[in-house]
Amino acid sequence: MSAQLTLYTYWRSSAAYRVRIGLALKGLDYASEPVHLVRDGGQQHAPAFAALNPQELVPVLRHGDLVLRQSLAILEYLDETWPEPALLPADAAGRARVRALAQAIACDVHPLNNLRVLQYLEHGLEQAQPAREAWVRHWIGLGLDALERLLAGDPATGRFCHGDAPGMADCVLVPQLYNARRFGLDLAAWPAIARIGAACAALPAFAAAAPEAQPDAPRS
Amino acid sequence: MSAQLTLYTYWRSSAAYRVRIGLALKGLDYASEPVHLVRDGGQQHAPAFAALNPQELVPVLRHGDLVLRQSLAILEYLDETWPEPALLPADAAGRARVRALAQAIACDVHPLNNLRVLQYLEHGLEQAQPAREAWVRHWIGLGLDALERLLAGDPATGRFCHGDAPGMADCVLVPQLYNARRFGLDLAAWPAIARIGAACAALPAFAAAAPEAQPDAPRS
Repeated sequence: MSAQLTLYTYWRSSAAYRVRIGLALKGLDYASEPVHLVRDGGQQHAPAFAALNPQELVPVLRHGDLVLRQSLAILEYLDETWPEPALLPADAAGRARVRALAQAIACDVHPLNNLRVLQYLEHGLEQAQPAREAWVRHWIGLGLDALERLLAGDPATGRFCHGDAPGMADCVLVPQLYNARRFGLDLAAWPAIARIGAACAALPAFAAAAPEAQPDAPRS
Repeated sequence: MSAQLTLYTYWRSSAAYRVRIGLALKGLDYASEPVHLVRDGGQQHAPAFAALNPQELVPVLRHGDLVLRQSLAILEYLDETWPEPALLPADAAGRARVRALAQAIACDVHPLNNLRVLQYLEHGLEQAQPAREAWVRHWIGLGLDALERLLAGDPATGRFCHGDAPGMADCVLVPQLYNARRFGLDLAAWPAIARIGAACAALPAFAAAAPEAQPDAPRS
C-alpha cells in the first residue's frame, strides 16, 4: 500500500483528470509523469508508453510494480485499496447508481469526443472545424440532458451526484463539464448538474486536480 | 434477491448481449422485454422507455422496484448480489485488470460504433455506407489490436480473458467479436482473442445469450 504511485497524465485529458480528482479526494501523494498528447506526434504513441498501455491512451497509474489502466478501473482500485473517504456508496443499489452515472459519461459521452476521434473526423472524414465542434456539442448535450434527468429526478442526489459527499460520479462529471465549457456550452441548461459542478469546484481536491493547476499545463 | 428480474433488451444490442451473458453465467431466470431499436423510429425513444432510462439506450434491468442502467454497472450489481460464479476475481489487482479489459471495449470501442453514432454519421455528416463501415472497422481494429497485446502478453490470461473461468471481460469481449464479424473483420488477425472467443462460444451460457437465440431476433 505504501508503494510509490505514479500517474501518467496530460493536463487537459478528461480521463486523467478523473483519476487526479480521485487521488486528491483520497489524499494520496503521487508523482506526475506528463505525456503530451499532441507534441512529438503524440507522446502516447511512443514505444515506451505503448508498452505500458497498448491502448496508447492516458491515464496509466503505476502502484509499485502494478500497472493500472482505464480511469474507471483505476478509481475502483483506489477505492478498494484506500477505502476512506469512499468513492462508492456502501449499498449495492447505490453503487449501481453511481457507476451508471459515471458510465453514462465515461462510455457514452467522452469517448466520442476525445482527441483521436476528432483527428479521425478531421483527417479521415474531412470534417471542418465547425462540423467537428457541432459533433462534440451534440454528444455532450445529449449526455448532459439525460444526466440532468437522472440527477434532478432522484432523491438519492444530494449536494453531489449521490448524497452529500463527492464520489466516483463527481470525479467523472467535473472533467466533462470542463470540456462542455471549452466547447462553448452554457451549463445553465442543466441546473442540477451546474449546482453539483459548483459544489465540487468549491472543494480543494477538485481545484488541485484541475487542468490549469497541473505542472504540464501551458503557462499563460 | 428473489424479486423478479426483467431485462429490456434488443437482440443485436452489444450492451444488452453483455448483460444476457452475465445473467446466463449466473444461472438467473429473467423476463425479456424487447425494445426494437429501429422500428417505430426507435422504441427506446418512446416516452415510457425514456422514463425508465433517460439515456434512451438498452439495456435496462429491473430487479423488483430497482431500475438498473449501464451494462457494466449491471454486471457489477449481478456479481455483488449473486456472487457465484464470480464475474470478477478476488484480488484488487485482478479486478482492476478485468475492469480495464472490459472498459477498453465498453468505453473505447463500442460507443463509437453504436446505432446512434452511425445515424449521426449518415444524417448529420452525410457519410455514405462505405465511409461508415470503414469508421466501424477502424475503431474495432484499433481496439482489438490493443486488447490482443494486453491478453497475449500477460500470464494472467488463461483459457478466458482472466484465468480459466469466464468473467466480466469475456461478457464484453464476445458481443464485440459478434460486431467485428458482422462488419467483415477476420478474427485470425487477433489469435489470443479468437481463441478466447472460441472458448466462450463453446459454453451454453454464451450460446443462450447470443443475438440469434433471442425471442426478438428475426426468423430467417
